[in-house]
Amino acid sequence: MKRLINDGYDVVEEMIEGYVQAHSDYVHLNPEDGRVILSNYISKEPKVRIILGGGTGHEPLFHGYLGENLGDAAVLGNINTSPSPEPIYNAAKAVDSGKGCLYLFGNYSGDVLNFEMGIELAEEEGIKADFVSIKDDIYSSENFEERRGVAGDIIVFKAAAAAAAKGLELEEVKVVAEKANRNTFSMGVALSSATLPVTGEPIFHMEDGEMEVGMGIHGEPGIERTSLKKADEIVVSMLDHIFVRTGLKKDDEVRVLINGLGGLPLMDQYICYRKVNQVLTNKGIKINGSLVGNYATSMDMIGMSITLVKLDKELKEYLDAPVDTPYMKINN
Amino acid sequence: MKRLINDGYDVVEEMIEGYVQAHSDYVHLNPEDGRVILSNYISKEPKVRIILGGGTGHEPLFHGYLGENLGDAAVLGNINTSPSPEPIYNAAKAVDSGKGCLYLFGNYSGDVLNFEMGIELAEEEGIKADFVSIKDDIYSSENFEERRGVAGDIIVFKAAAAAAAKGLELEEVKVVAEKANRNTFSMGVALSSATLPVTGEPIFHMEDGEMEVGMGIHGEPGIERTSLKKADEIVVSMLDHIFVRTGLKKDDEVRVLINGLGGLPLMDQYICYRKVNQVLTNKGIKINGSLVGNYATSMDMIGMSITLVKLDKELKEYLDAPVDTPYMKINN
Repeated sequence: MKRLINDGYDVVEEMIEGYVQAHSDYVHLNPEDGRVILSNYISKEPKVRIILGGGTGHEPLFHGYLGENLGDAAVLGNINTSPSPEPIYNAAKAVDSGKGCLYLFGNYSGDVLNFEMGIELAEEEGIKADFVSIKDDIYSSENFEERRGVAGDIIVFKAAAAAAAKGLELEEVKVVAEKANRNTFSMGVALSSATLPVTGEPIFHMEDGEMEVGMGIHGEPGIERTSLKKADEIVVSMLDHIFVRTGLKKDDEVRVLINGLGGLPLMDQYICYRKVNQVLTNKGIKINGSLVGNYATSMDMIGMSITLVKLDKELKEYLDAPVDTPYMKINN
Repeated sequence: MKRLINDGYDVVEEMIEGYVQAHSDYVHLNPEDGRVILSNYISKEPKVRIILGGGTGHEPLFHGYLGENLGDAAVLGNINTSPSPEPIYNAAKAVDSGKGCLYLFGNYSGDVLNFEMGIELAEEEGIKADFVSIKDDIYSSENFEERRGVAGDIIVFKAAAAAAAKGLELEEVKVVAEKANRNTFSMGVALSSATLPVTGEPIFHMEDGEMEVGMGIHGEPGIERTSLKKADEIVVSMLDHIFVRTGLKKDDEVRVLINGLGGLPLMDQYICYRKVNQVLTNKGIKINGSLVGNYATSMDMIGMSITLVKLDKELKEYLDAPVDTPYMKINN
């Protein structure tokens, strides 16, 4: 056991309690539902509300992105588990202003099922609601519709929320979210499993010196498990896969996100970034902005993902719009 | 080996290269010295310059705090090793505007020695320079002058830089830094060692399920090594030590920093924050602002520290002044 917790069954409630206290300038708990965190910055004017959610254990995803011009509410499940329909509905009930709510979450079957049911509950109460289940893990399927959502989630959150802040209608905000998703390509590598709080044990076993390229954020299988390679070699292999599956090419402009999965030192993340920069530059792909750090984790999993976002004028505008949350701040 | 690197001997250069590329909107490398990173926001008016530094392996310390109204330069050594006098001098040479430079670094004998020699070189060239070696780890010694610098470094950086931005003279900025230091109290706990890039091995061995309260950021010994306790129990024990050594009491106002050492999930850090909040509240100590996250790490070390900053009007003003860097942003 390498975790600092109390009872493994209490981690989600205790984490939420601590989060809401530490960031009381940004968020507060929904008094009617302990699994729904609300932004303090919800606009007074009626606007489309952005509701983020999914399982916990991915901090600062999702609640770390509540604040000004980003998420209005986050609805949280247990570790690696979708929230249930009731809190999903309660989030909409708490924030809707008559213009509807857009739910954004990673494309996992449990999440899709529960969010669809929550949306049904909202619609029964006369709240317009829709969702985009985010699909950015290019290795998880050749078919876009079947891809998982990983660190690219935050790109979609950011673009959609900027569109909502601008006053767009629900259908239009959804179009922006879908476009951001279509342009966002991720792939991960892991060297270890996360440690489950209840058992104190890893979810799966990896030998010291092993790695798996293409592994998902919960430990979903990747390409193959091999001996640990050098960072440069791993990055080149990951980018090759991304290029093949996305057709990114010379003169394309991208934003880069190196996402640490929780246990990987920032030092290593910057070493990986260096190689991404080199490969993209050599290929004539232009880098417009970069993020490096633990944006979407799997608790203490050692690993990282590379996300490339193919930019155009519209996406750049949405991604660069000012935002103020505990874990994403842009001040233009 | 659980790191994503290339040759262990190249990690510092490659990390610096990646960092400077990823954050080219905030920093650039000193063309004359590859161990000196410079802020892009150095004020045109002559002001006291703030130079941060120390060994690497503590990212985002030190270079993560370069930008507007914080560090003007960072000078970096090898892993857990002080920079040598020449880059220390080169940093001052690159940024001095005639009003002098204040060096801020953790209080380790190697750092003190090298920074003193670098300052001598600067003074020989007519540059006014002084330093504050930061001493916030209350467990490391009962004697303030012998304490080590840990996560509380960033509190001292922030206060001193705000004073420099305000136009204070070198001697006055130093007084602010020393005051911030005198009011900043930290204590750490670790469950594992960092992995050294060159050997691929931990610096020291800890059994799974062991912990050491009071351990330093490089693995310096703590109170005792015991079996892993529950988070609440650990937090209470750490706060007891802090209260005994600092005399913090009812009606004092503090800022709280929970600092992750690199490998500890953010979830666990918020669980610890929750208990800190509870204990302080019960004791009648007022919390004015909180930071939670990986602000000063030891690569992949699993652990965290608690820092309490005793506030007054002046310190609050300095700590809350606007700042814009990759790893600290305040927008008031």
